[in-house]
Amino acid sequence: MKRVVIVAVGSEMLTPFFQDTDSLFLTRRLNDFGLDVEEKIIVGDESDSLKKAIREGRDRADLLFVTGGLGPTDDDRTREAVAAVLNKPLDVDGRVLAAIEERFFRRGKTMPPANRKQAEVIRGADVLANPAGTAPGLWIEEEEKIIVLLPGPPRELESVFEAHVAPRISGRSRAHLARKVLKAAGLTESEVETMIQGLYPRDPGRRLTILAFPGQIELHVSAFSDVSAEEAERTAESLASALRERLGPAVFSDDGSDLEAVVGRLLAERKETIAVAESCTGGLVCRRLTRIAGSSAYFLEGLVTYSNQAKIGRLGVPARMIEEHGAVSGETARAMAEGVRRVSGADYGLAVTGIAGPSGAAAGKPVGLVFCAASGPGGTRVERFLFLGDRSHVQAQAAQGILDILRRRLEEKPAR
Amino acid sequence: MKRVVIVAVGSEMLTPFFQDTDSLFLTRRLNDFGLDVEEKIIVGDESDSLKKAIREGRDRADLLFVTGGLGPTDDDRTREAVAAVLNKPLDVDGRVLAAIEERFFRRGKTMPPANRKQAEVIRGADVLANPAGTAPGLWIEEEEKIIVLLPGPPRELESVFEAHVAPRISGRSRAHLARKVLKAAGLTESEVETMIQGLYPRDPGRRLTILAFPGQIELHVSAFSDVSAEEAERTAESLASALRERLGPAVFSDDGSDLEAVVGRLLAERKETIAVAESCTGGLVCRRLTRIAGSSAYFLEGLVTYSNQAKIGRLGVPARMIEEHGAVSGETARAMAEGVRRVSGADYGLAVTGIAGPSGAAAGKPVGLVFCAASGPGGTRVERFLFLGDRSHVQAQAAQGILDILRRRLEEKPAR
Repeated sequence: MKRVVIVAVGSEMLTPFFQDTDSLFLTRRLNDFGLDVEEKIIVGDESDSLKKAIREGRDRADLLFVTGGLGPTDDDRTREAVAAVLNKPLDVDGRVLAAIEERFFRRGKTMPPANRKQAEVIRGADVLANPAGTAPGLWIEEEEKIIVLLPGPPRELESVFEAHVAPRISGRSRAHLARKVLKAAGLTESEVETMIQGLYPRDPGRRLTILAFPGQIELHVSAFSDVSAEEAERTAESLASALRERLGPAVFSDDGSDLEAVVGRLLAERKETIAVAESCTGGLVCRRLTRIAGSSAYFLEGLVTYSNQAKIGRLGVPARMIEEHGAVSGETARAMAEGVRRVSGADYGLAVTGIAGPSGAAAGKPVGLVFCAASGPGGTRVERFLFLGDRSHVQAQAAQGILDILRRRLEEKPAR
Repeated sequence: MKRVVIVAVGSEMLTPFFQDTDSLFLTRRLNDFGLDVEEKIIVGDESDSLKKAIREGRDRADLLFVTGGLGPTDDDRTREAVAAVLNKPLDVDGRVLAAIEERFFRRGKTMPPANRKQAEVIRGADVLANPAGTAPGLWIEEEEKIIVLLPGPPRELESVFEAHVAPRISGRSRAHLARKVLKAAGLTESEVETMIQGLYPRDPGRRLTILAFPGQIELHVSAFSDVSAEEAERTAESLASALRERLGPAVFSDDGSDLEAVVGRLLAERKETIAVAESCTGGLVCRRLTRIAGSSAYFLEGLVTYSNQAKIGRLGVPARMIEEHGAVSGETARAMAEGVRRVSGADYGLAVTGIAGPSGAAAGKPVGLVFCAASGPGGTRVERFLFLGDRSHVQAQAAQGILDILRRRLEEKPAR
């Protein structure tokens, strides 16, 4: 029971508006049993497409899930399609029919004729009763393969899975899975690639996936064991710690936490406070910090000093400094960080000033030029960046940059 | 060129953590050309699975998109897999290689050896230059079929699509589609449903989809025509204008513009300025306003006055007012709006104060209670909201609420 494929059925998932989310739940729960999903196929309600997708899924999988298309309407065709692919008849099951009628009766209604087809069962299948809706799931074993049909509405899918599918899988599965997510800042994807050369696992029991986001690289490690959860955990951890060693202080979390959560935890532990002065990021740094519940313990205030007048009036940046060096300069960034620290009384003052684009570039100051400054008990540090990308990309990288400067500083120096 | 299949490549999309979102963009744009997506296959980086999925996709599709797996790392194998399926060799393309080297050079770096494989081109393919990254797309025609390889990062996928794929598809497509997106604020989904009763289109040539977001309802109208773009446009517009009439001033855009863009356009036209004081939204209102390129013309500054001390010191909110009425009160919201207007010299001062949760609730002040205030030439208006949902949901609705108060005010009253 190794190879798992999910076929998600529903024409709405082939529009720009809806995603298949059932498979995320299934994946998480199957991972718990050491089972990985190998492929997902998303297909509409049209019969031929549906049969083709189910046939492909069955060819690929030892364990095939087909979700959705079990409702009472004309465009619910999953039962028929699976029956056709398996070349088995559909029979109305008296007990299932009685259960559906009973469900309507309890709400003071009569079952509409359309719902009768929900009582049709593929011959030889086990019925998986649905505690949350009318459509039962079906469990079909044929030769070495298992095919499971589950209703599409998330609440129904989840309750049928937990009541009937999880116990059956747990009885058969011997594999265990462990997973680690390392997140790193301040490195490009290719830099990470170079630094971890030789660590890509070659054995089939371990996997490494690298993902790049603006200002952030993620390394997803997973390990399987047929023996025990402890062995899986050990194997995953040995790769994760090798990666951590190579990447050094660039790694800021290994439990999936975002940078603002890490910074928040560090500040809360140290009982220290921050204030932020933003120009080109326009509130994004404040926004990220205050996404975290409980951030009022350390975040005092933020000043989005977009105009020069605000930088001068709110932060005490000298007008002459802006004239001489420009609003986008290391000098101004320093004055902003020190200014916001002073006016707020916070332990740390952070500042970002730069050119997010598309306009605003000047001679020697291209779009993407950003200065970040962090002022604290040990003095002020200023860093210069040149980010690539459009406005939102530059803003995202700049926010990540300043949060990472603070994070490294907090990790380097013990609290006062 | 009727049947479209998308193969999305990346093991991360087979974990519980990531969804394929590229296909949503592709679907939306392909729909614009009258093309519907018939199936999506999501597959990992493992070579055999990948080849199998590409083979299946090619069997099914007249137009096959393969997204992702074009990066420089060992687990980027899309080029190889497609080449193997098509039985064609990969050649390093000198011009592509030079462009990649140039991209690194511009950042003052040398191309790492790993990136060389991004210059490999399947023989006979057209290279689709990537303005936003190193991996170019590829366009392959074989017999009656077209296979398009696109980079996975959304920004790169979108720019390669718009620059190279859209023009080629538009030249071959004969269907015409018109699309309208109405966005409304201040109404719930069921209120909208009730107001537009009887307007759901019954003919197959038109579609209406209603989508609910925090503080925003979207109505997506599309109409197809085999005859002309004008006919499609007329059909879509007749439905859109009927919807607009029913929903009245709640509709703030019909071209897809977000609320911050509408507010920005109104302010720029009137040559008026704003400043923002935020508490529970923690910078989100500023962040949204400054996402818009050119916002420096009207956005002067924002004060994220999270602590009471900041509200008192930065905005001149009387300490006694906070003691008597609380930081979350109509009185404080009014004082914040008037304070930020005064200290910034802006034409309008906006303020938000509330309880985003999960903690912070008090007697008579539940999580979700938010006061918004807008102060301007005609006086100050304060509104009280009680939003449902978790922290991020309350923050999103509160930001939407204050921006919509300003929008309605700017639309009501002519500029001075």
